[in-house]
Amino acid sequence: MDRVNVYEVAPRDGLQNEHEVVPTEMKVAFIERLIAAGYTDIEVSSFVRPRWIPQLADASDVVARLPRDTGVTFWALVPNRRGLERALDAGMHAVATFMSASETHNLKNVNRTTRESLAGLREVIATAVAEGMRVRSYISTVFGCPYEGHVDVERTVHLAGELLAAGADHISLGDTTGMAHPQQVFDVLERLQGAGIPLDRLTLHMHDTRGTALANILAGLQAGIRTFDASVSGLGGCPYAPGAAGNAATEDLVYMLHGMGYETGLDLDAVCEAGLFIEDALGRKLPGRYHQYYRGSLDRRGARTA
Amino acid sequence: MDRVNVYEVAPRDGLQNEHEVVPTEMKVAFIERLIAAGYTDIEVSSFVRPRWIPQLADASDVVARLPRDTGVTFWALVPNRRGLERALDAGMHAVATFMSASETHNLKNVNRTTRESLAGLREVIATAVAEGMRVRSYISTVFGCPYEGHVDVERTVHLAGELLAAGADHISLGDTTGMAHPQQVFDVLERLQGAGIPLDRLTLHMHDTRGTALANILAGLQAGIRTFDASVSGLGGCPYAPGAAGNAATEDLVYMLHGMGYETGLDLDAVCEAGLFIEDALGRKLPGRYHQYYRGSLDRRGARTA
Repeated sequence: MDRVNVYEVAPRDGLQNEHEVVPTEMKVAFIERLIAAGYTDIEVSSFVRPRWIPQLADASDVVARLPRDTGVTFWALVPNRRGLERALDAGMHAVATFMSASETHNLKNVNRTTRESLAGLREVIATAVAEGMRVRSYISTVFGCPYEGHVDVERTVHLAGELLAAGADHISLGDTTGMAHPQQVFDVLERLQGAGIPLDRLTLHMHDTRGTALANILAGLQAGIRTFDASVSGLGGCPYAPGAAGNAATEDLVYMLHGMGYETGLDLDAVCEAGLFIEDALGRKLPGRYHQYYRGSLDRRGARTA
Repeated sequence: MDRVNVYEVAPRDGLQNEHEVVPTEMKVAFIERLIAAGYTDIEVSSFVRPRWIPQLADASDVVARLPRDTGVTFWALVPNRRGLERALDAGMHAVATFMSASETHNLKNVNRTTRESLAGLREVIATAVAEGMRVRSYISTVFGCPYEGHVDVERTVHLAGELLAAGADHISLGDTTGMAHPQQVFDVLERLQGAGIPLDRLTLHMHDTRGTALANILAGLQAGIRTFDASVSGLGGCPYAPGAAGNAATEDLVYMLHGMGYETGLDLDAVCEAGLFIEDALGRKLPGRYHQYYRGSLDRRGARTA
C-alpha cells in the first residue's frame, strides 16, 4: 500500500491565528491527543518573538512538557538565528524556516526583501544542520500572492533550490491564501521537477480559502507528492478576518486518502477526538467538514448532549 | 476552451432542506439573480406533495412568476405521475425524477422498493417525453448509503441503463451523504462507460459532508464528465442535523474550473451576489468557502458594514 505522510500543523499554524491564547497545559493535552492518533510529524509551536505572536509565546514551555520517546518528530517554526537559538535551548531536533516567494508578501510578513531573507535563512539552516537538526523550509505564496496576484514559478524554483542546497531536507510549498487550482499544482510541480527538485523533497501546504484545498492536494497526490500539511478540523485562518479559512482539514484529507487505499498511520477517529478537544478548548466552531459531520454524528447518538 | 456545464440546484435541493419557508417572491428574486449570473440550467423547485416538503409547496407559483425567454432551462423535481401532472400544468418543459441505488434508502425516502420505483419512473419518463419534456434522472446513494454502507455499482449500472432507455436524457449520479472518494469516482465512471453508458449522459451530484465534494468533482472532470450539479454557497444539507453539509458549493467549483481554463458561461461575482442574497434572506451563515471569503472581502472593504 502506498504511504502518505500527513504533517500536522494545527498546534502552530492553527493556534497562532486564534484570538484567544490557549493555556500551555491545554496545548500539551492537544498535542498528546495528536500523538495518540498516530502522527509521525507534528509542528508544535513557533519560536518567533513573543511580541509578534503572543499566542505561541510559551513555545519553550510547551516543548518542555511534551512526552519523550514517542517516535514522533516535533517541529517548531523559527524565523531567524535568534529563534533557532531558542529552539536549540528548548531541545528541539527539527525546525521549520519560512519566507515568501513574492516580494511584497515577504516584506509585509518579515520586513525584509526575499534576497535578505534567503541570505539569513542560509545561515540559520547551516547552523541547524551543524547542530544535527532536521530542517524544513516553507515557501509561502507559491501559488499566488494577496498583494501581487500571480507569482512567477521561477521564483519558487530558485528559492527551493537554494534552500535545499543550504541543507533543508524538505520544502513546503504554501498556498498561503488559498488561490491555487489543480492545473496550477500540476504545472508548478512539473516545473520544479524539471529543474531537478525531487518530488520526495516537496510538501504541499494548501489553505482552503476558496474551498479548493483538497482538490489541489488530490492533484499533488496524482503528480506524486506523498507529504501534505494539514490542520485538525481546519483550525487556522483568522476568526476575526471573516472568510480567511485555515489549512486543509486533516480529517477530510485522511478520509479521502484512506478511501483511496493510501496508508497514513493515522487513526481517523482519534484525529477527530483531538479536533473535538481543541474545538471545546477554543469555544468556537471549527470549519472542517468531516469534523462537523463527526460531531453531528455524536450529537445525534446523544453521546455529547446532556 | 473546454466547456463545463454547472447545473444549479440551490433553489430546490438547497431550499428544501431549510427549516424556514422562504417566501415565493424571494425565491423568484433569487432565481432571477441566478439567471443573471449566466446559468443554462436551474432546478427551480419540486412538485412533490406539499405535505412532504412544505418549503417547496409553492412550486407552481414560483414557476408562474419566472421570467420568460431567458434561454435558461428551468427544471423541477417530480416524484411520480401526480407530480409530473402538476409540473405539466405549471408549464414546465424539463423535469427531474429521483430514486436511490440502495434498497434501504429508497424505501425510507419514497416508501417503495427500487423495483417499484423504477417501474413507476419508466411511466413518468415516457409520459414526460411524450409531452415533449426533457428528463434528467437522479440516482441517489450511488457512492454509499447511510443505512447500508457500500452500494454495488452494478445496481447503478442497471438503473442508469433502464432510466436512459426509458427516455431520460441525463443521469445525475448522487453522492447523497458525501461518502465518495476520488478513486471510487474513477471506478464507478469506468464501470458505467464499460457498460455502454456515455459520459456525456452523466452528471455528478456530490455532497460535501466529509469535505471531499470538489476533489470528487475533479476526479469526474479528469474522467471526462462535463456536467456537475452544484449549489450556491453550499446551500443545502439540513441546518438542524448538525454536520449534514450541502452540495458542492457553486462558487468554489466555478473558481476551480475557471482557474483550470474551463468555460462555464458563469460570472463568478454574480454567482457570489446571488449567494449573499439568499444568505441574507435565510438569516443563517452558509457553508461555502468561496462565499465566506467573498463576503469577508466585502466586509473588509466596508461595502457591507454600516
